Amino acid sequence: MKDSEANMKCLFEPRGIAIIGASQTRGKIGYRVVENIVAGGYGGRIYPVNPRGGKLLGLQVYGDMEELDGPVDVAVLVVPAAITFSAVEECARKGVKFAIIITSGFSEIGNTAEERKIANYAREHGVRVVGPNVFGLYSASASLNATFGPSDVKRGNVAIITQSGAIGIAMIGKTKVEGIGLSAMISVGNKSDVDETDLLEYLTCQDDSRVVLMYLEGVKSGERLVEVLKKTTRKKPVVVIKSGRSTRGAQAAASHTGSLAGEDKVFDDVMRQCGAIRAESIQEALNWCKFLPDAPTPTGEDVVVITNGGGIGVLTADACEKYGVNLSDDVAELKKSFECVMPSFGSAKNPVDITGSASPDDYDKALGVALANDSIDAVACLGCQTANFDADRFGAIAESRYAEYKSVKPIVFSLFGGAEVEQSIRELKLKSIPVFPDVYEMTSFLGALYTDYRNKSTQFAGDEKADIDAIAIDRIVARARADARHFLLAHEAQEVMRIAGIVTPQSRIAHNTSEAVRYAGEIGYPVVMKVVSSDILHKSDAGGVALDLENEREVLDAYEAILRNCRAYKADAAIEGIQVDEMVRPGVEVIVGARQDGSFGPTVMFGLGGIYVEVLKDIAFRAFPLSREETLNMIGQINSYPLLLGVRGEARKDIDQVASSIIKVGSVLRNCAAISDIEVNPLVVYDHGEGVKAVDVRILLRESMEA
Amino acid sequence: MKDSEANMKCLFEPRGIAIIGASQTRGKIGYRVVENIVAGGYGGRIYPVNPRGGKLLGLQVYGDMEELDGPVDVAVLVVPAAITFSAVEECARKGVKFAIIITSGFSEIGNTAEERKIANYAREHGVRVVGPNVFGLYSASASLNATFGPSDVKRGNVAIITQSGAIGIAMIGKTKVEGIGLSAMISVGNKSDVDETDLLEYLTCQDDSRVVLMYLEGVKSGERLVEVLKKTTRKKPVVVIKSGRSTRGAQAAASHTGSLAGEDKVFDDVMRQCGAIRAESIQEALNWCKFLPDAPTPTGEDVVVITNGGGIGVLTADACEKYGVNLSDDVAELKKSFECVMPSFGSAKNPVDITGSASPDDYDKALGVALANDSIDAVACLGCQTANFDADRFGAIAESRYAEYKSVKPIVFSLFGGAEVEQSIRELKLKSIPVFPDVYEMTSFLGALYTDYRNKSTQFAGDEKADIDAIAIDRIVARARADARHFLLAHEAQEVMRIAGIVTPQSRIAHNTSEAVRYAGEIGYPVVMKVVSSDILHKSDAGGVALDLENEREVLDAYEAILRNCRAYKADAAIEGIQVDEMVRPGVEVIVGARQDGSFGPTVMFGLGGIYVEVLKDIAFRAFPLSREETLNMIGQINSYPLLLGVRGEARKDIDQVASSIIKVGSVLRNCAAISDIEVNPLVVYDHGEGVKAVDVRILLRESMEA
Repeated sequence: MKDSEANMKCLFEPRGIAIIGASQTRGKIGYRVVENIVAGGYGGRIYPVNPRGGKLLGLQVYGDMEELDGPVDVAVLVVPAAITFSAVEECARKGVKFAIIITSGFSEIGNTAEERKIANYAREHGVRVVGPNVFGLYSASASLNATFGPSDVKRGNVAIITQSGAIGIAMIGKTKVEGIGLSAMISVGNKSDVDETDLLEYLTCQDDSRVVLMYLEGVKSGERLVEVLKKTTRKKPVVVIKSGRSTRGAQAAASHTGSLAGEDKVFDDVMRQCGAIRAESIQEALNWCKFLPDAPTPTGEDVVVITNGGGIGVLTADACEKYGVNLSDDVAELKKSFECVMPSFGSAKNPVDITGSASPDDYDKALGVALANDSIDAVACLGCQTANFDADRFGAIAESRYAEYKSVKPIVFSLFGGAEVEQSIRELKLKSIPVFPDVYEMTSFLGALYTDYRNKSTQFAGDEKADIDAIAIDRIVARARADARHFLLAHEAQEVMRIAGIVTPQSRIAHNTSEAVRYAGEIGYPVVMKVVSSDILHKSDAGGVALDLENEREVLDAYEAILRNCRAYKADAAIEGIQVDEMVRPGVEVIVGARQDGSFGPTVMFGLGGIYVEVLKDIAFRAFPLSREETLNMIGQINSYPLLLGVRGEARKDIDQVASSIIKVGSVLRNCAAISDIEVNPLVVYDHGEGVKAVDVRILLRESMEA
Repeated sequence: MKDSEANMKCLFEPRGIAIIGASQTRGKIGYRVVENIVAGGYGGRIYPVNPRGGKLLGLQVYGDMEELDGPVDVAVLVVPAAITFSAVEECARKGVKFAIIITSGFSEIGNTAEERKIANYAREHGVRVVGPNVFGLYSASASLNATFGPSDVKRGNVAIITQSGAIGIAMIGKTKVEGIGLSAMISVGNKSDVDETDLLEYLTCQDDSRVVLMYLEGVKSGERLVEVLKKTTRKKPVVVIKSGRSTRGAQAAASHTGSLAGEDKVFDDVMRQCGAIRAESIQEALNWCKFLPDAPTPTGEDVVVITNGGGIGVLTADACEKYGVNLSDDVAELKKSFECVMPSFGSAKNPVDITGSASPDDYDKALGVALANDSIDAVACLGCQTANFDADRFGAIAESRYAEYKSVKPIVFSLFGGAEVEQSIRELKLKSIPVFPDVYEMTSFLGALYTDYRNKSTQFAGDEKADIDAIAIDRIVARARADARHFLLAHEAQEVMRIAGIVTPQSRIAHNTSEAVRYAGEIGYPVVMKVVSSDILHKSDAGGVALDLENEREVLDAYEAILRNCRAYKADAAIEGIQVDEMVRPGVEVIVGARQDGSFGPTVMFGLGGIYVEVLKDIAFRAFPLSREETLNMIGQINSYPLLLGVRGEARKDIDQVASSIIKVGSVLRNCAAISDIEVNPLVVYDHGEGVKAVDVRILLRESMEA
């Protein structure tokens, strides 16, 4: 880890940089990169490389890498795709640590073989590759602008990692316009080697980067990303934009990046788990990034809104609920605090309404009170341009109050009105004071600030693992493999559950009617009977299931009927027996699952069970490592959670056992490489202390054993 | 109707205007209103009224209303609250048609009596009242700015009705800054007489008002609002902002307006039903209002996105799903159309990716193709400032293509990048070309445009009513009233259902064990038994329910047990008998309800039934009039609708009968004034053609019969 960090530092602060394919032609990429490096004021040696030699922007152009007379940590490659491999060979010979391959024409257009060849060669020879198909790198700490984008980058404290070159280049200009300063900007392109996680890991400890913004289309090494993100978000906010949120968008992303991005819901939940703050739009992300680097972390959850208009106050309260911002509601305390600044017809409830007649002095007093009060953790101050409103003086007051509490307590402003108000907004923004033209934008920023606060005030507990007898499970899997099956039979799956310590209904397999009757007696009536056959997947459709059998007679009848039905359904089906099951008493039905996710590796899933999981999709996902606390958060995330808390006077359900079941199911998946998918649906949950029962369990195996 | 419209025209285009309480003191409201009227260029006579007389801004000041020598349709009152009543008396004597009472200090601070006195007097004497507690009126058609807000109003085609004075005044400035022109702006204040519906009705036929924007905190005459909105939205878009969306916001609104705003979900659904386009934030509403007045209505649902960046293309596809915008997916047609402008590595799927290497000419060609193609109904064109992007030339192309198709086909743009791009956005905006800095904002506008398109292409069918024997129901209600009950007993409620033509489970009331056994035999086993007692509301808690009774023996036992339990639960409970019910076969459980809503009068409700309705709140509301089509839309709106369509290979359920039940339950409420609340939960729905069954029915009566 330390090694890789030290290494990454060479990328962001290289001792020397070569530009292979440097060009004399203005406007060409090979020219612009050199031009930007020179203009950016990079302090190390710059080596333009081109067989034609000569001079470029006052620099000597080297014929090849051999000629370079100093250490070169980074080479930027702008040569055609066909000769990129040989350029990488030159880099390796010269001891270059990072090759930034701007050149495109590789996997993004289907040329995967060449890209892999380059990446493999580079790895073997100690060269790490950024790209191909990137726009380069900007690093404020080295005053290095090795991109072909705009030369004029605003320096600051936001680091940007982007998977889209177009968005990245446009973002350089956009951030400058918005007054957002950058500490670093890098695109990952085709990610043949270095990916977003490598970069994020470096930026975690890079102090100039106080906020990290990532634009992603898909995730490469999801398990490592989870691990690194969890560390980063304890130190600084990580804002994530991921496209492909919708079904249609995911299709478009697949056609754009050539790879399916994975289910967005999984991504969304895992980002939440890790504390990343996901923005819906680029605009929203930039609104956050503008003010997050300088905002003090609040010390608690109590926010007070001060307004001169009831209407915008109410809109702000709405926005607070949407963005998870908590309004202080200690009415007695608020009344005591704001009494002195409140006209008789104002409201000291929160939002505190100092009314349309509020003068600048009233604002100043109200702000003073709110900022000085230790029980108020953050302040949102709204101004509506009524007849009495003085935008200029409001601006001055905002500025001075902000300056006073700049590093102590978050203050945000929202102003609504005409030209004077717009002018005030512009001026406050130029001074980096958080001001927004709309209360929803303001509150969205507060929401981001509060996610960061909650991140910093909760540490992740360790990884809770259940003790799993993997060898016993592997024996069951081996039997299935021997039968050339890619799934376990119901009784095998139940056996796996029992090995994992999850209670399943009692069950025996009868091979004749007398066994069936005997087992039913042992289990206790009523019982359920089901055909056991790997040739019949949908047992109900085949008439292979009989419910609520109350006595010997019914068991005998059901045995015959099932055999008859199944033979009629599929004459050549191999029937291994008839399973006799305990009839499970009802409880809250949930679904618990675990599977190998394309992006994040092993993940667990929890949701409302039965038929509703399909229709309402009220489910939550988590990646590993996973503590019990995170598991409980996951359970609490679904909309139907109140069913587990007990509605209509019912008792609280056994939520602890649900959490344990999720952890156990997850541990099975993690410990048994052959298993790709586990789904318990329903897991019936009883009252607190009475446990759970895994009624129906499906386990799928990986198609091949390579993993 | 025609009368009230003609009348309203006097408000917006008065023949003469008096300002009672006109003041010589600059800055006072009584001065500013006169100043604004004069500056605005109003063509009618202006009569400042003040007992002190003299001259004001070159106008003669009249001592009292008697002295006025011409017709005065509107009087603006800025006198103190205490003498407002006498000023209204003066207005009545002079034949003033509208008194706009700017003065505050009435119901908003609890002084309801005086407000009511004024409103009653005015109504009796033919004076309509706007306000009190308003900021006045702006009307472009009369060049009349009778407000105390900014004097500089931009003239245009958006009419604004606002319940918040502060937001309204600030909006005058804000709209000017945003380049949004106004046809009218009026605040409704305390709505003692004229309300949003009266104003909307007038604006429906006022041709200069091409878009209506309403800011609401609560609704006064909701039933009339529904009726008028349905007409307005067939002609022009109505954008609605309503605060109090969240629980916390609703509390804040209650403390601000002094009245509970009603359940936001009901408001939201009714707005949807009427075709109003609800904006979340003021900013969103203004983004729509800026471009809606001039946008042509699309002729179909197929939108094509053209982009030079895959990333922003995918983000746009995401946004399209969010805002209900349909991307054309005729890939063959798209390929054929865009072949000529597409580099080999671009994508002719939608979003059409002409890649980062696209030149201005490529954009021009692609736009030309998309606009000329009749199978494409609207075009969204995105520009990401890559190295090749020329913001200036893009702007020129956008302008010329827009001009060419301005009134034919909607085109919207989104540009992302640095200073040049921002400049381009500013210039295009000045020319009223729909351009947005973020693709989500752009798509949100497209979504509004498409709601308007759908509104204009669907007419509301009539009001479907069920034949209800109200007299028979009233007889049942009378019995309950005679018992001093505010609710119906279960068997009475079921009787109401049967009168309305809704099937209920068979049921008899037994008064002894032999009756119980006989009835159970007639109904058929299994049966359910329940205590009948107005003293026991929660029957299960009292042990007053027995399920799944399969034979005579069980019926006898249950009878005794229920009596015993209920006496133990409440010794003095009057037990009227034991109800013997058919045990209902299972189906999909839904909830159907009807109730008197505080804002909208009679409304119906539909949702997922059973325990889930409480927890998941998957419900929809509608107001009357209500056609069968709207009822079916309502059913289709809930998330669990697929359960009715049939999941896991199940048959489609009897959705028609669900719709009929909703209409019948609604008709009962509308025909029986004594009933305030009906809830059928569950209504069990069987397969298509097999009907529904109302299993549990609760009916509440109004507390008093005044309604």
